[in-house]
Amino acid sequence: MIDWGQRAEALLQELAACSEPGPGVTRLPFTPEHRAALEVLQEAMRRADLTVSVDAAGTLIGRREGPPGSKTFLLGSHQDSVREGGAYDGIMGVVLPLLALEKLRAEGVDLPFAVEILAFADEEGVRFPTALIGSRALAGTFDRDVLDMRDGDGNPLRDAMTTFGLAPDRIGTLARNPDEVIGFLETHIEQGPYLEREGEAIGVVTAICGIERHQIEVTGETGHAGTLPMKGRRDALVGAAAIVSEVDRLGQQTTDLRATVGALTVEPNVVNAVPRAVRLTAEFRSPDDDIRRKAGDGLHSFVQELARQRSLTIEATRTYAQDAQPCSAELSHCLMTAAKATGARGLTLPSGATHDASAMADLCPIAMLFVRCRDGVSHKPEEFAAPADMGAAIVAISHFLMAVGQQPETYGV
Amino acid sequence: MIDWGQRAEALLQELAACSEPGPGVTRLPFTPEHRAALEVLQEAMRRADLTVSVDAAGTLIGRREGPPGSKTFLLGSHQDSVREGGAYDGIMGVVLPLLALEKLRAEGVDLPFAVEILAFADEEGVRFPTALIGSRALAGTFDRDVLDMRDGDGNPLRDAMTTFGLAPDRIGTLARNPDEVIGFLETHIEQGPYLEREGEAIGVVTAICGIERHQIEVTGETGHAGTLPMKGRRDALVGAAAIVSEVDRLGQQTTDLRATVGALTVEPNVVNAVPRAVRLTAEFRSPDDDIRRKAGDGLHSFVQELARQRSLTIEATRTYAQDAQPCSAELSHCLMTAAKATGARGLTLPSGATHDASAMADLCPIAMLFVRCRDGVSHKPEEFAAPADMGAAIVAISHFLMAVGQQPETYGV
Repeated sequence: MIDWGQRAEALLQELAACSEPGPGVTRLPFTPEHRAALEVLQEAMRRADLTVSVDAAGTLIGRREGPPGSKTFLLGSHQDSVREGGAYDGIMGVVLPLLALEKLRAEGVDLPFAVEILAFADEEGVRFPTALIGSRALAGTFDRDVLDMRDGDGNPLRDAMTTFGLAPDRIGTLARNPDEVIGFLETHIEQGPYLEREGEAIGVVTAICGIERHQIEVTGETGHAGTLPMKGRRDALVGAAAIVSEVDRLGQQTTDLRATVGALTVEPNVVNAVPRAVRLTAEFRSPDDDIRRKAGDGLHSFVQELARQRSLTIEATRTYAQDAQPCSAELSHCLMTAAKATGARGLTLPSGATHDASAMADLCPIAMLFVRCRDGVSHKPEEFAAPADMGAAIVAISHFLMAVGQQPETYGV
Repeated sequence: MIDWGQRAEALLQELAACSEPGPGVTRLPFTPEHRAALEVLQEAMRRADLTVSVDAAGTLIGRREGPPGSKTFLLGSHQDSVREGGAYDGIMGVVLPLLALEKLRAEGVDLPFAVEILAFADEEGVRFPTALIGSRALAGTFDRDVLDMRDGDGNPLRDAMTTFGLAPDRIGTLARNPDEVIGFLETHIEQGPYLEREGEAIGVVTAICGIERHQIEVTGETGHAGTLPMKGRRDALVGAAAIVSEVDRLGQQTTDLRATVGALTVEPNVVNAVPRAVRLTAEFRSPDDDIRRKAGDGLHSFVQELARQRSLTIEATRTYAQDAQPCSAELSHCLMTAAKATGARGLTLPSGATHDASAMADLCPIAMLFVRCRDGVSHKPEEFAAPADMGAAIVAISHFLMAVGQQPETYGV
């Protein structure tokens, strides 16, 4: 009997070796490390009886045909890592469905549709100031202007892709026909502690959270900490502290909201001067856009009142907003059934982070399967998913594909 | 009739020209700018009929003898400025008593004791990482080890002083005999807004505040702002915000306390990461050491409880403590009487900042006279004291010296 979890772990370790030297895994897109990883994956795809190709955006595709005229189901994630990242984020979402197809083939199961395993070149956006190149190409939302963006060494993305043997100017032709795609499943480590706390190996994602970010600038008046009386002080940091507390309060008291002040800087930032100005960020994430917007609006009201009370000038600007991306109810239902068949309780959770699935949602229905990760840690060398948990995910993915195949009325295969 | 305030302003403008190029006044100790200022002051001292000398620590001394065997009253402040500072901080405390002596001489008043006007070389501690060289020398508290300290160009203090024509190794011989000194009066701009808010030109200082500083390190746990659930977060910045609010609350609710968080830095300080660690300072100043210590102890209790409640690790260390220096009740009474004689209401206030008088208190009774400064601003090119206010201070100083002279039982002249 094959231990699919151990197979996944062995393949992921082989892929982790495709890395720049240094702690953990550093595998940036369109590099020799990327090339090495593609070779390892190609071999594994061939073992799973998949036909291998690389598209113009650098996405490695392993395809198994279905019955003539059938639609295609897509599964995958990204091959790239952050600098000094881990061996699971992204790449595990390529390896597990790949092994699920090998398992189905070993069990003699034929699916009533075509399947493709996708290994996108770049999701993290670490090398170039853009991300989601491969998934946007398939969804037809790729912006050609990003080809002129440069990496830290001054190389344009276009040149890096061309040197890698790709045809960046053909990316526009990669858009898939939505009528021919059933859906997209992304498998990913949770990057959070929820499943670990709940003692569960896998969970079904309900939605990818919407995000909004605010830049807040609090301006008061500096002065000597010894000579400026307390009465009448306009201390920018005292104002900012109230904002930090309020953002946390909003997050603690509202269901389905994550609220964080991540960055804060003080001027002049010396021990004996009353702070003149503080710049801080506030970020809200929620699977429910109304909840998220209400929190942002609430913060703006709060800072207006605070500015009045403390005679401060506070400018708050919503600098970024991205709506939530709900997962397909039908696909998620299939995924839930499949998860429960592995003995899982069928927990659901939102994804707080953005994924390739966010971009794929412009093309087709999406679903996401989260795998427990140790201590909720990702983007670090210590990142770890247990082989047994990955084995459970492989079983769930194979059950999922069979469940999708049993719903021809929905997916019209 | 002589306008003494205008005389002060003219002399201060002449001295302000003794500056490095650039905005405001930059006059560091043992530099050509220092030399130029001493020449201007020497000429003014001779006009006031004072005998001029420079001691081994670089203190310019203008002395007028009293009756044979009489003690000496000292008045003065420092000649140096911060970088791009103003024309009044320090140097005004040399010019005003100097003109007060000229005024007394013009009016034919002889004092029953000797007087000296002192222009200390260095109080700000901008060039070398030490300060109060001249006043500590007179008080006998000068530490010879500081002669080895270096400025930003690597020059030791000893060499800078020798090049300036001084004899640093003789500083140990400068200590005055306390039995021969009546007291020390320092006149200084307030560096705060109290007198301006009260509409008063001058005020009498009750004490130089004691200071204590705390370094606080809050350590929690970082994580992705999207994937880490709110429940169970150990957000170091949320903890630090509570500390900032508490320090301000202590200052607002306690009489005679100034409480400030001046510096705060966040790690990793990015928009989408829960803060892992925050380092911040807390400073308390009070003319009453018990009040100050109670606030420091209260903060330590607060952070212990906070650490427990939020599962944070918080280390709070008292890194610096300096006791308050009360002004002499007898001298302050004379100063109050003198101030009222100019039409002042006789307001009292503590000094939140340290001054040469802090060091002189180790030698003799001290008193301080504060002069209103515009917008409470100091250490900036915009620093300004009005000629009329300086004129009032000159009159008050001359009355003060006469009042001291009328108390032979106290000062044994």
